[in-house]
This record gives sequence, C-alpha cells and structure tokens, in this order.
Amino acid sequence: MASAEIYMQRCLELAALGAGCVSPNPMVGAVIVHNGRIIGEGCHRKYGEAHAEVNAIKMVTDRYTDAAQLLKEATIYVSLEPCAHYGKTPPCADLIIKHQIPRVVVGCRDPFSQVDGKGIEKLLAAGVDVTTGVLEHECRWLNRRFFTRVQKHRPYIILKWAQTANGFFAPADGSQFWITGAESRKLVHQWRAEEDAILVGKNTVLADNPQLNVRYAEGRSPRRVVIDRQLQLDKTFNVFDKTVETLVFNAEKFDVDDNIKYIQLEDFDNYVPQYIMYQLYLQDIQSVIIEGGAKTSQHFIDAGLWDEARIFTGQATLRAGIPAPRLSGKNEGSQTIGSDILQIFTNQP
Amino acid sequence: MASAEIYMQRCLELAALGAGCVSPNPMVGAVIVHNGRIIGEGCHRKYGEAHAEVNAIKMVTDRYTDAAQLLKEATIYVSLEPCAHYGKTPPCADLIIKHQIPRVVVGCRDPFSQVDGKGIEKLLAAGVDVTTGVLEHECRWLNRRFFTRVQKHRPYIILKWAQTANGFFAPADGSQFWITGAESRKLVHQWRAEEDAILVGKNTVLADNPQLNVRYAEGRSPRRVVIDRQLQLDKTFNVFDKTVETLVFNAEKFDVDDNIKYIQLEDFDNYVPQYIMYQLYLQDIQSVIIEGGAKTSQHFIDAGLWDEARIFTGQATLRAGIPAPRLSGKNEGSQTIGSDILQIFTNQP
Repeated sequence: MASAEIYMQRCLELAALGAGCVSPNPMVGAVIVHNGRIIGEGCHRKYGEAHAEVNAIKMVTDRYTDAAQLLKEATIYVSLEPCAHYGKTPPCADLIIKHQIPRVVVGCRDPFSQVDGKGIEKLLAAGVDVTTGVLEHECRWLNRRFFTRVQKHRPYIILKWAQTANGFFAPADGSQFWITGAESRKLVHQWRAEEDAILVGKNTVLADNPQLNVRYAEGRSPRRVVIDRQLQLDKTFNVFDKTVETLVFNAEKFDVDDNIKYIQLEDFDNYVPQYIMYQLYLQDIQSVIIEGGAKTSQHFIDAGLWDEARIFTGQATLRAGIPAPRLSGKNEGSQTIGSDILQIFTNQP
Repeated sequence: MASAEIYMQRCLELAALGAGCVSPNPMVGAVIVHNGRIIGEGCHRKYGEAHAEVNAIKMVTDRYTDAAQLLKEATIYVSLEPCAHYGKTPPCADLIIKHQIPRVVVGCRDPFSQVDGKGIEKLLAAGVDVTTGVLEHECRWLNRRFFTRVQKHRPYIILKWAQTANGFFAPADGSQFWITGAESRKLVHQWRAEEDAILVGKNTVLADNPQLNVRYAEGRSPRRVVIDRQLQLDKTFNVFDKTVETLVFNAEKFDVDDNIKYIQLEDFDNYVPQYIMYQLYLQDIQSVIIEGGAKTSQHFIDAGLWDEARIFTGQATLRAGIPAPRLSGKNEGSQTIGSDILQIFTNQP
C-alpha cells in the first residue's frame, strides 16, 4: 500500500467515528502529514458541528507553537472533497487556503450540489496542489447512503431475505418457517440498527407477525414501514405496538394514530415503490432495509429500486413453496454465518 | 398577581429562551422556590439536552451545600407537565420524586401521548402535592405550534394578508399594489423568521414574484411551499432561486431539482389543503405562514385549516379589485403599525 493510501485508510477509520451521529451529513475524516509524520487528525463527529478538516487543523494549532510554519509544509488528506459553501460552518476550502497548506489529497468528490467540484476548483484556483481519487471506491462506499440520497433522491435500499438450500422463500401457504440460524438472526438485528428504516409488505406481517426491531444486537430500532393497500391488518400485530414510529402506505386514508402515520397513495398500481421511496426521502430517511416478503422484494427489484442484496441460504430444503425473488447484480462475495451462507450482491448498471 | 402567577410568569420567560432551539420539543421553564425565595431556575435550551426541571434542580445542587434539605421544603413551578417517559433524558417526574420536592405547580398539561397526564399521575401517586392550571392560557399559547402538531397532526397555520381601507386585496388584474408601509413589511419579515415554512399559491408568484425570505429582519428564512397544480410557473421566478428549500405541490410529477422538491397530489379537487398540511407534518414542519393569494387563503379558511390570522389594513383604497378573504374568528385586538392597522384573529371552535 502506498503511503497516500495508508493515510487515506486512516481518514476512513476516523470518518467512521461519526457513524450514526452526522446524518444527513456524510462521514468524513482528515489527516495532516508533515515530513512523513501525522501531526493532526480529525473527523466530522456530529451533525452541525465542526468538519473533519477544522478538527485536524485545530489539533495542529493546539499542539505546536510553530503550527503556522508546519502547516505551510504539510499535506492534508481528506476522505471527501472539502466544502466550498457556508453551511452550518464556514467553507473548509477557505480554511485550507488561509493556513497555506500546499497540498491536498482527496478521497472522492462530494456530489452534493453546493460542493460537487467547487471545493477542488477553489483550492486549485488558490494554487494548492490537489490530488483526487485515492481509495476512491472505499471513500464512496463508506458514504453510499449519503451519495444515494444526493444523487438519486431516494434512500439507499438494502434487500434482505433467507432462502432454503433449494431456493424457496417460504412454504406455499405462506406460513412461518425458520430457514436461518441464531448467528444470522443476530447479524440481521445488527443491520437493522444501522439503517434508518425497515420495510415489509402486508403478507409478511400476516405470516410472521414480526416486531422488526433490534433485540439481538445493540443499537436503536429503525422506523418501520408497512405496505397495506386496503388496510387489512388489524391493530394487534406487533408492528402496530407503537414502540417505534411506523409509516403505513395505503390506498385508503391519511391519518395519524400516535406514532403510526398512515400515508395514502392513490395510484397503487403504478409507481408504488418509487413513490414510497420518495416519501421516505422527503422525511430524511437515508436508508431502508426491505425484509420481505418475496412479492414486495420482487416489486422493488423489478422497478430497479435496490442497491444491495443480502441473501442467506440455509441448509433446510422445502419440497415446494414460494420461490425466492430473482435478481441479477454484481456478486460481491459470500461468507459463512453459522451454518448459513450469506451472499452479497450490488446493483451495478 | 398572586405569587404563584409571578413564579409561573418567570417560567414562561425562561421557557422562551429555548425559542428556535428546542423544536420539535416544546419550550419549558422551571423555577424552584424555598420560603419565598427563588433558589434555582432553568429551561429546556436545546433539543436533545436537559429538560427545564433538570437544569433548575442542578442549579440548586450546584449552589447550596444543604440542597437536599432545601429541596425537601421547596416548590417547583414548571410551565408544562413534567415528563413521565424515557426520551432522550430520564423522566423529570422521577427526578422530582427522587429529590422529595413536596409541591409541584404546573402551568398546563402536556398533550403528547407519552406524557398526557402521566407525569401528574406519577407525582400524585408518590404523594406529591400537585397544582395545575396556573397561567394555563399563557402556557398553552407559548407552545401553540407544538400543541397543534401533537393534537391536530398538522402545522400551526397563520394567515397573513394586507387589504385596502375599503377591503380589497389587490387590483382586479392581479397586478402588484403595495398596501402597507415599511414598518409592516419589517414585521412580516420578523414573522417569517419565526415560522418553519411559508406558503403561497401560483397566482401570487405570477403577480408579485416574491422572494419569501427574511431580508428586513434578523433570522433564518423559512422553507418555501408553492402550490402550482399544472406546473405553469417557469424557473426564473424568485421562489425557484434555490437559496432555501422549496416544496412545489402539483398534479404532474414527483421529482427533485437540487433543493426544489416536487410533490405530486392526485386528487387536486378534494382535500388539497388537508393533504398539503399532512405532508408538511410528515416533514416535521411545525408552523406555516400563508401569504396569499386571496384564493389560496380562502381555500384554507373554507377547510377550517387556520389558527391565527394577521390582517393589515392600509390607508389606500382601490375602486375595484379582488376582495380580501373572509373569515370569522375571535378578535384578539388590533394595533397600529406605522400608518397601517394590524388585527389579529384566532380560530376558536
């Protein structure tokens, strides 16, 4: 690994410290290097507070009496393009120019319209030496939810399902059938804690009466989203227990019952996956994990509305049943979780 | 004014320090009195941070070595019912019980479903002497936006318009005609800074090309909301300058252009004011000021969807023109602003 990549790797580690605290901002890390030695580092820790570059520069000025001279001979590595606009804080590009840092290494460009190349342009115009694209894929992957919101105007969509060794999703009558083991279940709960929302269709509620919360891992439960066109689900199902906010997309009414919000969609035969994702986008939901059923997942796949699929294959078989959804995507590899196989696919154009 | 009311008045002053920083929480102030002397006070200063009661008790424990004994002989005044649930902080009712404060005076009940009398019940069950309803009207008025969101599941709606001395809203051709003076305009800009959103119909954009931002007062500009059913407004109008987020309700498309968000409503002939208010509610917009035109304001009045009307009457007259909207509400008094008269009405059932 070249030294630039080692420093950028450190930026990524720092950036990840902001996970769960900076949304809807991206996670960003910065490292300042002088003569092969890290003299300052920082990250964006909390929404509304200082950006990574500000914290890294502050560490240098706090620690060194000759900080002004050191910065004039340093390189700053930052996982995302420095901002060029006044948001909740002044532009980081201006700060870098003010301190006369001669060299900036950027992981990836910021697609947000108020930045989108403007930070890099500003630095270049001030005579700063700018390198871009170091560990670009990793930097983009870290903020894939943010990138999706900004570029596609919808949440990042993760499909998750389990299938039997011979490709069935559930028994033909839709009844509950445990395909995966305890390790996989724990992992699924961890995933839930990482996303803003979790979505299921009516049939999954009928078959499994899921709670859709985080019980076998640490972290907060995501907001629930249920699709129930004719409002056929009665209020005794677990998803209506009001322990977390629940959105119910339907064709019947808009209404509020405590923290259950009914959102009416009229054209249910067309555009439903698109419109639901747009409603989640409007509510600043940056990511959603779709946990079934087969039909609901297939609707999103058919509409091209998915980014990542996490598919468990268990050892059990079923003689017949509901077939698992079908998708084509890039195979990102597989691993063993307990006695199950987990495969990850991404939706590559 | 009785002493309880004097202390509650102080709670209201403290509560107001949280204005603009605690939404979507309510503003709350608390005062702790021992033998006729205030020994601690506090407010809810920022969303996610300590509640008023916590800060007031902390002031006592920080200042007095005999705080434990003082609190056992004190009365705590609080403008809103103490909470009984674990939110971002532990329940304040529990804290009061823990410190054995024997008497609590509450301005008004908290209608939020997770409180709604439960805080008072908890205190009573622990043997605390609870008085409610001191300056109740004032306490409710301070948090009228919060109360509306929690109880009516929509933003607090303020209508604002100007009319000529003989009751006209604008010339018949809809052209621009300044009815009010500079003092009124300054006040209107101050109002804009106080609300989360500002709404106009298509005809107002066509007639006045307004910016709908805050220029003649201090403070942030509200989000813009434009109703343009067939998307007839071209992008050169000021409301599309992208300086603040703008929502465009229409019958044509859902789409995003930078920070302009198009929200499609299909049933435009029915329920439009209701549905728009529901969409704003879903986006955590607690209040909206409707600045015209006459037709748009009348739609909201006819649907019963308004809480407060602020009507300027200027000295100019028009021979003919578009009549001002008509409403019936409770007259809350009038005042002179420059050479204009400002009347306030509230929508009382």
